[in-house]
Amino acid sequence: MKLIIAIIHDEDALKLVKNLTEQGYRVTKLASTGGFLRSGNTTLFIGIEKEKVDHVIEIIKDQCKSRKEIQPAPTPMIGNSSMFITYPIEVNVGGATIFVVDVDRFEKV
Amino acid sequence: MKLIIAIIHDEDALKLVKNLTEQGYRVTKLASTGGFLRSGNTTLFIGIEKEKVDHVIEIIKDQCKSRKEIQPAPTPMIGNSSMFITYPIEVNVGGATIFVVDVDRFEKV
Amino acid sequence: MKLIIAIIHDEDALKLVKNLTEQGYRVTKLASTGGFLRSGNTTLFIGIEKEKVDHVIEIIKDQCKSRKEIQPAPTPMIGNSSMFITYPIEVNVGGATIFVVDVDRFEKV
Ligand code: NI
Ligand code: NI
Ligand code: NI
Repeated sequence: MKLIIAIIHDEDALKLVKNLTEQGYRVTKLASTGGFLRSGNTTLFIGIEKEKVDHVIEIIKDQCKSRKEIQPAPTPMIGNSSMFITYPIEVNVGGATIFVVDVDRFEKV
Repeated sequence: MKLIIAIIHDEDALKLVKNLTEQGYRVTKLASTGGFLRSGNTTLFIGIEKEKVDHVIEIIKDQCKSRKEIQPAPTPMIGNSSMFITYPIEVNVGGATIFVVDVDRFEKV
Repeated sequence: MKLIIAIIHDEDALKLVKNLTEQGYRVTKLASTGGFLRSGNTTLFIGIEKEKVDHVIEIIKDQCKSRKEIQPAPTPMIGNSSMFITYPIEVNVGGATIFVVDVDRFEKV
């Protein structure tokens, strides 16, 4: 039995948990650092058999890999006498830190 | 030395921590997922000697086991011309996911 | 590869993470228990090579060790006919609980 501790970005949490659950993995979602929009991370604990570690890590990589994304520019504040032209912003999203540790014992009660 | 990682429901956290502490166990309470009423979970880290793992798991089971509970129905909204009869709801509460991992080193500073 | 799980007090989190990062360690900050002022704790996950465990623990001890601190008294509420004299309060701050566990596998994606 292994415990996969995956720290992912909040924006990827929903789809990753959905994906893992649909494939039959039991995922425990811990708290996220919350607070600010898009800045939090979510910690997942996934207890699985040794043979499935590769598969779970593959799924996490697929869903969470670090990538660039084009975000619409925030709506500009338009004052009396000035106007700003805004551009979409390229931001880094995603990414995951994964630790696999050995589990002596696993219980679900 | 072992580390017990127990993920329990918020509603059981207070009594479990109290119970473990009274029996001499040191419990570190991590964040809970918070957010919505009754929907959060709390993660506990308990560092203990190998011989006590069984006892701690027994306590967690006692305090947190999955069970049904009768909750009073929410107060109905009563409109002008209609009235709803409400019934108490049976809900699932409790439950715990427990991982025991080996600890190379434990420090309290 | 080892995983250091350090549970520290919120008030020490910023300077510890800064210090570890400046010395080249990768730190993942989990959620804190938040809620009440000064009462929360923060969990850090630090994945490192076995040879560096001692150094990281030394840094955590330096930055987070349990200590007493003099805090200015809260500003008293002054009513119509009474006045309170307040004194600075000595409080316990800091402290850390550290678990080191073996890591089978570590991935950053
Ligand atoms: Ni993010
Ligand atoms: Ni619950
Ligand atoms: Ni504190």
